[in-house]
Order: sequence, then C-alpha cells, then structure tokens
Amino acid sequence: MVWDVLNVIGTIAFAMSGAVVALEVKYDIMGAYVLGLITAFGGGAIRNLLTGIPIIELWQQTTLFIVALITISIVILLPSSAVQLLTKWSIFDSIGLSAFAVQGAMYAQSIDLPLFAVMFSAAITGAGGGMIRDVLAQRKPIVLRDEVYLLWAIFAGFILGLDWLSKSYHFYILFTV
Amino acid sequence: MVWDVLNVIGTIAFAMSGAVVALEVKYDIMGAYVLGLITAFGGGAIRNLLTGIPIIELWQQTTLFIVALITISIVILLPSSAVQLLTKWSIFDSIGLSAFAVQGAMYAQSIDLPLFAVMFSAAITGAGGGMIRDVLAQRKPIVLRDEVYLLWAIFAGFILGLDWLSKSYHFYILFTV
Amino acid sequence: MVWDVLNVIGTIAFAMSGAVVALEVKYDIMGAYVLGLITAFGGGAIRNLLTGIPIIELWQQTTLFIVALITISIVILLPSSAVQLLTKWSIFDSIGLSAFAVQGAMYAQSIDLPLFAVMFSAAITGAGGGMIRDVLAQRKPIVLRDEVYLLWAIFAGFILGLDWLSKSYHFYILFTV
Repeated sequence: MVWDVLNVIGTIAFAMSGAVVALEVKYDIMGAYVLGLITAFGGGAIRNLLTGIPIIELWQQTTLFIVALITISIVILLPSSAVQLLTKWSIFDSIGLSAFAVQGAMYAQSIDLPLFAVMFSAAITGAGGGMIRDVLAQRKPIVLRDEVYLLWAIFAGFILGLDWLSKSYHFYILFTV
Repeated sequence: MVWDVLNVIGTIAFAMSGAVVALEVKYDIMGAYVLGLITAFGGGAIRNLLTGIPIIELWQQTTLFIVALITISIVILLPSSAVQLLTKWSIFDSIGLSAFAVQGAMYAQSIDLPLFAVMFSAAITGAGGGMIRDVLAQRKPIVLRDEVYLLWAIFAGFILGLDWLSKSYHFYILFTV
Repeated sequence: MVWDVLNVIGTIAFAMSGAVVALEVKYDIMGAYVLGLITAFGGGAIRNLLTGIPIIELWQQTTLFIVALITISIVILLPSSAVQLLTKWSIFDSIGLSAFAVQGAMYAQSIDLPLFAVMFSAAITGAGGGMIRDVLAQRKPIVLRDEVYLLWAIFAGFILGLDWLSKSYHFYILFTV
C-alpha cells in the first residue's frame, strides 16, 4: 500500500519534471512524452538491470504507465506561462527522488540484497531517471550539481537497509519537500 | 526473410549515419567505427535488455557486424566533400529507424509481449541507437527534436502489435523514405 | 592473482580519474563520489549486461568498492592546485583502460565467448566507465577523440581472445603508460 502510493507519487512527479524539461529545451510534444516516460521509468529500469531483478516486472506497471501519460498530457496542455513557472520550481525532482529512493530501498530490502546494494538501489531508483533526462536534454545532471538530493536518497537506503522502523518515511518525504 | 532484409537495411543505414556523425564532430577513424557500431547495434541491445530477450543473441549476428564494419570503412574512405553532403542528408536516419522499428515490433510480437511492450520495442529498436549516438557526439538527440520519426516507429509497433496484415510494411518503408 | 591486481589498479585509476573530472567541471563532493564510482564500475557493469554475465557479481566486489571510496576521498582532500595538476595528466585514463581492458578480455575468455565478444569485452570494460563519465560531465568522450586508447584495448582483447601467452600483459601495461 505505502509502496503503491510512493510509486504513484514518484511517477507523477518525474513524468511532470521530464515533460517540463523537454518543453524548456524546445523539444516538441513527442519529445515531452519520451522524456517524461524516461524520467519516470528510467531509474527503476536501471535498478532492475543492475540488481538482477527480472526486467519483465517493468512491463506489468500498466497503471503507472497510464498515470504518467496523463500527467505528461496535462503538462503539454498547460499554457506556456504555467510551464515557465514550473521550470523554476524544482520541487518535482525532490518529491520524485524521495518517493523513488524510499521505494527503491524497500524493493532491494525485500529481496534481501546486502546493505551496499540497498543504498545503491535507493540512489539509482531515485536519481537514475533524472540523470538520463538531463543527459538527453544536454544539461549537467542536477543530481551531480545539487548533492543534497542524492545524500537524502542514500541516507534513506541506509536507514531502510538497516531495517529500522519503516513508518519514518512519511516524515522523511514531508521533510525533504 | 523480410526480417533479415530489414536487419541488413537498418544496419547499413545506421552504421553509415553513426560514422558520418562521428566525422562531422571531428572524431577520428576509431571514433567512426565505435559510433557506427553503437548506432547500428545500440537500439537492439537496449531492446534486448529491457524486454528480457537473452542478450546473447546480440553476439550471433556476425554477418551484420561485418556488414556494419564494411559500411563504416566505406564512409571513412569517402572524400570529405562527399561526407559533408551526407551530413545534410538525414535520410539514413529515416531508413534505419523505419527498418529497425518494424523489425523491433516483429521481434516483440513474435515472443508474445503485450501491445505496450511491442510499441516500446519498435520505438527503442528504431530510435535507441541514434539516441546513444547523439549523446556520445554531444548533440541533442534528433529523435527528440524531430518527433515525426518516432511517431512512425510507435505507429508501426501499434500496427504490428495488433497483428494486422504484416505485408503492409513494405509500403510503410517506402512511404517514410 | 594477476586478475585481482589488474582489478585494483584499474579501479584506483578510474576512481581517481572520475573524481578529478567531477571537480574539474565544478561538481561537488557528492558528485565526485558518484562520478568516481561510475567511472570505476560502469565499464564492468555494461560488460556484464551485454555479455550475459550475471550482474550479481558486481555486488560481490566489496573490497574494490572500498578501494574506490578511499581513492575518491583522497582526491577530494587534495589541495585544488594538486587537482589542477592531475587534470592535465591523463595517465590515469591510460592505466585504468589498460588494466580493465586486459581484465575484461580475460573475463570473456574465461567464459568461452567468441573472439568478437572478447574484443568487445576488452573495449567496453576498458572504455565504458570513461564514456559514461564524460557524458555525465558533458564532455566529448575522450575515447572517441583519442583513438589510441581504444585500439590498445581491442588489441589486448584480440591477443587474449586468441589465447596467446598471457604473461605478456605486464609488458603491455608498462608500454601503454
């Protein structure tokens, strides 16, 4: 349940951020869809590949795909003044990263990966999508410029890797925001 | 048979486009080979990774590797005026994308992936190689700038995913060109 | 034994090179760690993915992870004049590439891949990490600009793929340096 909520929050936030970046660098409608989807699902895809989780699970997230497509469509339909406002507002990145980092850590934790891999899984699930997005939009990856983001993600992985009380992430997400 | 023809066409077109881009951004001979090979095989490699097709099949395409190497060698041996002409002529991208998109869709279709994944397979097989090429050459990915390309690919995936008459792709390729 | 030595040398050299590049393009401490780790382990990760070696082995290299982390910490603690000196000195790239290329070729050779795949494995293990590093730092990949590097790697793969006397690589490494 918590898992699903995190997934939906992260997907919406990253799909939005990908679409906004695409419009910002003058990619067109198709580019917004591609970048939105890549941002939303790229981190999880790399995580699955590098931790040996069957990649097929990526394709069973039909609901999330539809959520992402709707989110991107809304961004595209927004007036350009609203989009400009959104570009100044990097909160989607923070929300998406927090949600996905916790989700990535929980995932790795649930299949009994070692602490190291749990921390990595949190970092890559949270930051991977945004890194691919920035590379494709020819920007310096925000995660590498603004390290606070990634520290949070790894910290989340650390906490969950040690299997401390998992109720604390609600607080965690609020805090980052 | 159709499959093999598409594969050879796509490989030649993308190997050529990768080599041309490499020369255009002043990479040298080795760079042309690397970029040509990556453009020709990158899309299929990502497709295999993300759809769970055994990656080992990538290494059984010896004929295609040789075709790609010969193509790149020819581009390198061309006089630089001919190469400059080729850079203005983005037709290789269209041909490669069309051929690989159809081939990617057929592949995904043949292993009974869901419609969503067939469309994705068409898109990534067709566009993946070019995206990596552009990232490595530090250009904005042409696929994101010129969405017409990708729409065709996804459309092809859609058609084939629905299992409509597959004879139509001959027409399709001609049309895009 | 030789294998382990190569691994440690390559890891130190690439972790250092990644951290130096990160500082050079003004990424901060976290960026140095991320880029150092990616440079050190990225090539091997892609190699494993594309040759079908179980990715899980990536996570059993705890010693190498720690070696990389220590190396990066040292680079970060260096005075900035020393770092500037290091940026002019591309020897780490050569060392890392040589060590990893030989190691990648040995790996592929040990699981009986065909000659083509052994050469590819040498190239990607040696050059993959640096390519991802350069893409994330928004530089043209040095491997594509300076082909000598990659030729060495593929040559090493060729030699080892043919199963010639493997003692020769000590000489090889010294030579490249």
